[in-house]
Amino acid sequence: MSMIVDRRDLDFILFDLLGMEELLRHPHFAAFDRDACTQMLDTAQQIAEDHFLPIAAEVDANEPRFVGGRVEMPEGTGHALRACAEAGFFALPFAQEHGGLQAPRVLHTAASGIFTCANTAVANYAFLTVGAANLLAAFGSEPLRRRFLPPMLEGRWFGTMCLSEPQAGSSLADITTTATPRADGTFSLRGSKMWISGGDQEISENIVHMVLARIAGAPAGTRGISLFLVPKRRVDESGAVGESNNIALAGLNHKMGQRGTTNCLLNFGESGETIGHLIGAPHRGLEYMFQMMNEARIGVGHAATMSALAGYRHSADYARTRTQGRRAGQKDPSAPPVPIVEHADIRRMLLAQKAAVEGAQALCLYAAQLVDRQEIATDADEKAWLGALLGLLTPVVKSWPSEHCLEANKWAMQILGGYGYTRDYPLERLYRDNRLNHIHEGTFGIQGIDLVGRKLGGDKGDALRRFAAQMRETAATAARQPALANEAARLVAALDQLGVTADTLLACADLPRRLANATVFLDAFGHVVIGWLWLWQALVAATALEGNPPAPDRLFHEGKILTCRYFMAHELPLGIARLALCATLETTSLDAPAALFAL
Amino acid sequence: MSMIVDRRDLDFILFDLLGMEELLRHPHFAAFDRDACTQMLDTAQQIAEDHFLPIAAEVDANEPRFVGGRVEMPEGTGHALRACAEAGFFALPFAQEHGGLQAPRVLHTAASGIFTCANTAVANYAFLTVGAANLLAAFGSEPLRRRFLPPMLEGRWFGTMCLSEPQAGSSLADITTTATPRADGTFSLRGSKMWISGGDQEISENIVHMVLARIAGAPAGTRGISLFLVPKRRVDESGAVGESNNIALAGLNHKMGQRGTTNCLLNFGESGETIGHLIGAPHRGLEYMFQMMNEARIGVGHAATMSALAGYRHSADYARTRTQGRRAGQKDPSAPPVPIVEHADIRRMLLAQKAAVEGAQALCLYAAQLVDRQEIATDADEKAWLGALLGLLTPVVKSWPSEHCLEANKWAMQILGGYGYTRDYPLERLYRDNRLNHIHEGTFGIQGIDLVGRKLGGDKGDALRRFAAQMRETAATAARQPALANEAARLVAALDQLGVTADTLLACADLPRRLANATVFLDAFGHVVIGWLWLWQALVAATALEGNPPAPDRLFHEGKILTCRYFMAHELPLGIARLALCATLETTSLDAPAALFAL
Repeated sequence: MSMIVDRRDLDFILFDLLGMEELLRHPHFAAFDRDACTQMLDTAQQIAEDHFLPIAAEVDANEPRFVGGRVEMPEGTGHALRACAEAGFFALPFAQEHGGLQAPRVLHTAASGIFTCANTAVANYAFLTVGAANLLAAFGSEPLRRRFLPPMLEGRWFGTMCLSEPQAGSSLADITTTATPRADGTFSLRGSKMWISGGDQEISENIVHMVLARIAGAPAGTRGISLFLVPKRRVDESGAVGESNNIALAGLNHKMGQRGTTNCLLNFGESGETIGHLIGAPHRGLEYMFQMMNEARIGVGHAATMSALAGYRHSADYARTRTQGRRAGQKDPSAPPVPIVEHADIRRMLLAQKAAVEGAQALCLYAAQLVDRQEIATDADEKAWLGALLGLLTPVVKSWPSEHCLEANKWAMQILGGYGYTRDYPLERLYRDNRLNHIHEGTFGIQGIDLVGRKLGGDKGDALRRFAAQMRETAATAARQPALANEAARLVAALDQLGVTADTLLACADLPRRLANATVFLDAFGHVVIGWLWLWQALVAATALEGNPPAPDRLFHEGKILTCRYFMAHELPLGIARLALCATLETTSLDAPAALFAL
Repeated sequence: MSMIVDRRDLDFILFDLLGMEELLRHPHFAAFDRDACTQMLDTAQQIAEDHFLPIAAEVDANEPRFVGGRVEMPEGTGHALRACAEAGFFALPFAQEHGGLQAPRVLHTAASGIFTCANTAVANYAFLTVGAANLLAAFGSEPLRRRFLPPMLEGRWFGTMCLSEPQAGSSLADITTTATPRADGTFSLRGSKMWISGGDQEISENIVHMVLARIAGAPAGTRGISLFLVPKRRVDESGAVGESNNIALAGLNHKMGQRGTTNCLLNFGESGETIGHLIGAPHRGLEYMFQMMNEARIGVGHAATMSALAGYRHSADYARTRTQGRRAGQKDPSAPPVPIVEHADIRRMLLAQKAAVEGAQALCLYAAQLVDRQEIATDADEKAWLGALLGLLTPVVKSWPSEHCLEANKWAMQILGGYGYTRDYPLERLYRDNRLNHIHEGTFGIQGIDLVGRKLGGDKGDALRRFAAQMRETAATAARQPALANEAARLVAALDQLGVTADTLLACADLPRRLANATVFLDAFGHVVIGWLWLWQALVAATALEGNPPAPDRLFHEGKILTCRYFMAHELPLGIARLALCATLETTSLDAPAALFAL
């Protein structure tokens, strides 16, 4: 039993649920058939087992240190990332014209997840590099792409995202880093960037920072922010790495988890000139960032899911081998103790994890596949609809796993009892690693405002209504399966409440009051979406069971149906209760005077 | 604003809500009037601010190490505990005949909470010593008490509880440590004890372990366990500390939190004889433990509450001073940013914490006061009823805060954004500290079995029905206050569902099926109890508001009513949904085959 991937479930989600083979038939993905995908996943698993997992505890215990002006960290980090790069994982999702392998994003997401599950702190460097390269590929000029993309796709240079500043975290409108034009068309950057993951290290030959800054005279707020490519070491036109670009590491942040990823305060242009290259047009930096943010946010939601998958598998393994206590009603104290998986409450905590992990995994891969389908869509309406659906789901993909898969990590620890909080076991580290996902790349609250303010408010609920109709179709099909009729009815009840609540929020002209309900609505909407994905999974499983499959397959599919039942019974009613709360346009948080919290 | 106590709220709960002055009028507590209580709390706060809080980060970062056969730890730990002991806090709850100050347990709980809030890892040593001394005072022979109690009450010797073994955590029936009678009436102990908090250290002159072990020939299971007092260093009849008693420190466990408390694997009688003294009668050890466990479990629930109180106050302080973003609807990006407490979602997270912390604080102090009332009750029926109510509430007091005040710590981190998971701030440590409370002293699942199996099953629901009637009285009174009529109706709805669900569970003859619902029932029952305590607090506040108090008092009391509204709107419906789930005698966890978790 692998601790870092459930290949059976991954196949189920990719191929049985999402029908990935249809996607692969598109000419854009000609280089990948199902076998090629399977080989890529095999390779990812092998590298993750060999190089990522063995150093997960070490990079947590020996976090990067700032010694003599350089960052030191366990050398296994570099080895693991080189293995990952050499096997092509940095290049996997990029177009062949940029030197990529042109695989579907959904395959890249699934493969990256295996590295993340094994060791999120090390996998982060690859994730950030792909994110930065994505921005460059999408919006950079041809000369910039030619100079910087190849070494990034080869994994020789890593990338970062430099958005936050000490005084501007969630509020990017307030960033103050400046970019002053130079005679040669480049810019001179000055300012401080905070929370920069991978902001400094000596593993890669160079670091390519994607930096938000203001050009002098730019409008105030988010419409005056531009995007710059700023290398750690300067690069000449031939692509050769030269002298330092004067980005000073001002400090390392010491975090609860993901400790193997450097997290930096960087000063640009403090002790010499820092030169940057404008990406795209001036003042449109945040717009570019937002266009790429869907994928970054899918990545964070998926990372949260992967930390929980690791916890689920470890705790399941423990539950099957640790003996303790006797079955309920067993009165003979000399009877031998049973494996704790025999206790119903242990199985409840395993089911809770399975429901969260496999539900979230389906969500993240569904969203990643929407990116692919949007990319290859030729019909303008279809393309627009896929974009709208992706926009609607992105805050859910970022947030639901970061809340509920974090909760899954809590239950994984609980199953191990005292061992769960002991640092010799990986469970408490997995919780700590996962805790960051709730905050970085936009907090839960920020995602709520995005959903209710920008997404729902932006199209008056059109995308939500169309998506709800799609969920209702699944429910209608499931309702015809006797084994799923109850669960289908539960989803319909949830969709009914979702419609009422969304209409009430949309009809509320009082913006502060509407937004005061945004976070709770986001969480509850996520429950409905996950409920839909569970019903869909159960439907596929029920269909497979009609074929009378062999025993292990039967157990697998029966497990899907059982977990759907679990989610609908234990979790969906809580989502409905929260939707009902939002439908009252609840005001206690608005009514609470700030002074109440100063007593 | 103190980060470790809310004295205004403590006064409200102790005196306005629980009517402690009536308790103090009882002759048993003649040494304490309200002023004396206030002075004790003042002293606790002073010592905690001066000695406990300043070293909280240090004892976390520099955890105890095993060097040359001795445990080393930051020396501030010993200083803090000596200050605490010298001010009388170890002796506070004990009878004067034993050398104690004979204060109400509720005062001791409140005062201890201040130390715990400041530094739970250091406060643990005092908490465990009081627990061990409690056992000795209740069940030890007069000579044993004379020899061991005075130095414990003076805080010169510390105490521990040695229950778990490597193979026997939740299942105490399986402990294998043996006790062999010696000619002089003492016993020779052999075996290993695991997870022993404070199991070794060099701060105190001696350590008094309370050890569960089996005398040869004892019945199997829990009815063959005896309780022994086993000192680290032998003590002669005059009370002088002598040679080593051969308890070997086999290892220190390294935990997620509460790192300043040593957590040990101890071997008894491995390298020489370990001598112990039987407490009470043979084979009744677990019964004694259970009699004292109410207080230990109140202590753990209260510790969970205190970690959350610290997180609440820190995050409130941050929210009032950190500026970020603008009010919803503010379109001018050049307007200055506002303190984040101005954002409704930040206030929602503060209200969630306030509801959990002040609700749980009321619960813990209510339970502690029941211990006092039970102790001084002279009427046999009254005494029995208070004992039954305490028994019913103990699993809730242990569990509700360890789940929901842990959740509060999560929201405290969230309010700080990236700083929340940075180790330079205390928030992530508070979460880590608190995480242990969910597991030690009986996991959530064990508490559920205690509630549904032993407590509800034991009296066929009598105590629950009587307690529910008491809660209904509060609702009936509140219903007559227009400002509270809605909240009263919500509590009544919850009580209705509680009654239906409890009856259904009691009527279920299928024990495994009943117990499969126990944990969810425990959690939901806790929500009803906390809802009741909030309605009660709101009622007291509404009455106070009728007196037209000055502004700060008005704000305080209005805050109680608002937080009651918050809890009833946001939280109680989730409890009702969970009760409704239990009323279906839900079976997914029973139905899940163990093999499903081995795929």
